[in-house]
Amino acid sequence: MDSGQVKRRRGRPPKSGEIGATREALIRAGVVAFAERGYSSIGLEELLGSVGVPKGSFYYHFASKEAFGLEVIEAYTAYFTRKLDVWFSDDSVLPLERIRNFAEDAQAGMARYDYNRGCVIGNLAQEMGALPDTFRERLTEVFADWERRLSSVLSAALARGDIGPDSDCDELAAFFWVGWEGAVLRAKLERSGRPLELFARTFLAQLCRHQRP
Amino acid sequence: MDSGQVKRRRGRPPKSGEIGATREALIRAGVVAFAERGYSSIGLEELLGSVGVPKGSFYYHFASKEAFGLEVIEAYTAYFTRKLDVWFSDDSVLPLERIRNFAEDAQAGMARYDYNRGCVIGNLAQEMGALPDTFRERLTEVFADWERRLSSVLSAALARGDIGPDSDCDELAAFFWVGWEGAVLRAKLERSGRPLELFARTFLAQLCRHQRP
Repeated sequence: MDSGQVKRRRGRPPKSGEIGATREALIRAGVVAFAERGYSSIGLEELLGSVGVPKGSFYYHFASKEAFGLEVIEAYTAYFTRKLDVWFSDDSVLPLERIRNFAEDAQAGMARYDYNRGCVIGNLAQEMGALPDTFRERLTEVFADWERRLSSVLSAALARGDIGPDSDCDELAAFFWVGWEGAVLRAKLERSGRPLELFARTFLAQLCRHQRP
Repeated sequence: MDSGQVKRRRGRPPKSGEIGATREALIRAGVVAFAERGYSSIGLEELLGSVGVPKGSFYYHFASKEAFGLEVIEAYTAYFTRKLDVWFSDDSVLPLERIRNFAEDAQAGMARYDYNRGCVIGNLAQEMGALPDTFRERLTEVFADWERRLSSVLSAALARGDIGPDSDCDELAAFFWVGWEGAVLRAKLERSGRPLELFARTFLAQLCRHQRP
């Protein structure tokens, strides 16, 4: 999977009906591979082998490694955004509690795969020097969207007086996601949820100390 | 550079005198390559080519890619620790100012290479799933050392009453480095110093708000 060239419809034409399933299986395998190891070091043969797809059928489904990468980013983003929605829209708990719940769920999610899987968006951002520029644009948009979602939870906390009245929710949301990707990285290194727990707890504690007296 | 096997003294024996220089050049090239792209996607041939060393002489200098990687980690750590010492030991400015100065220098350092070079330690931590376990141990120690150094600057701030009396300096130092690696990652993505500036500024602002009244 070293080539970003466009090569269409190479190899054995798949039987009708199996095309959608194969595409989906490849994207699913891509999400796992990108979450574990990023983009650059992923081999096409290995990826195809992991889903039992014959060599050479990749370019029947995707115009290039770049096109495939962008679809994997979309699939992961859709998955992660649904997750954020679940936690951040949970009106049954207070706003700051929603952030804590998201962080705890993320810890459980990383523990489930023995801390081998990180964040696809963070992994790709880390490798940006070696990635196509189309990725940069999309990854930046994804972070901006996550920031907006978190900022609105912080605004709800601000409206309740749960955080200091001078809090800049947009800046705090940007700060959170900047640091959170570092926490995911450290969790992979330490094979432990400690960095995620530490980052979320300290972030929230700092906010809460600024409560109206 | 795909093999971690031990292969000694393969290839043309170098002329006496050039051995040390070649080793050093390879390590320097390794630091740059690891800072730009991490470990897994670096090819041995490319690395050798970049320093004009003949193919096949790598294993004369290093027992394995893993041994080379560990020496690159040591070289980068020595460089970065000297940098930290310069800023964190600068008694001519207040403790929190030392942290700000370090962050500004880091921004300038990333700008100098157009945000293509990140932190070797962070890049390798990100790839941990694909790296030898000897790396995990060493990278964890390096972070622990950086935490101790920062914690002692924060303790100096605490002693002066520049941060809240209930501040846990060790935890705050750990929080800083967890988030800082995220900021380096985002700076690479955005090709901008903004994430570093935002992270350091918000971290320091949160600390300062806890000053004794």
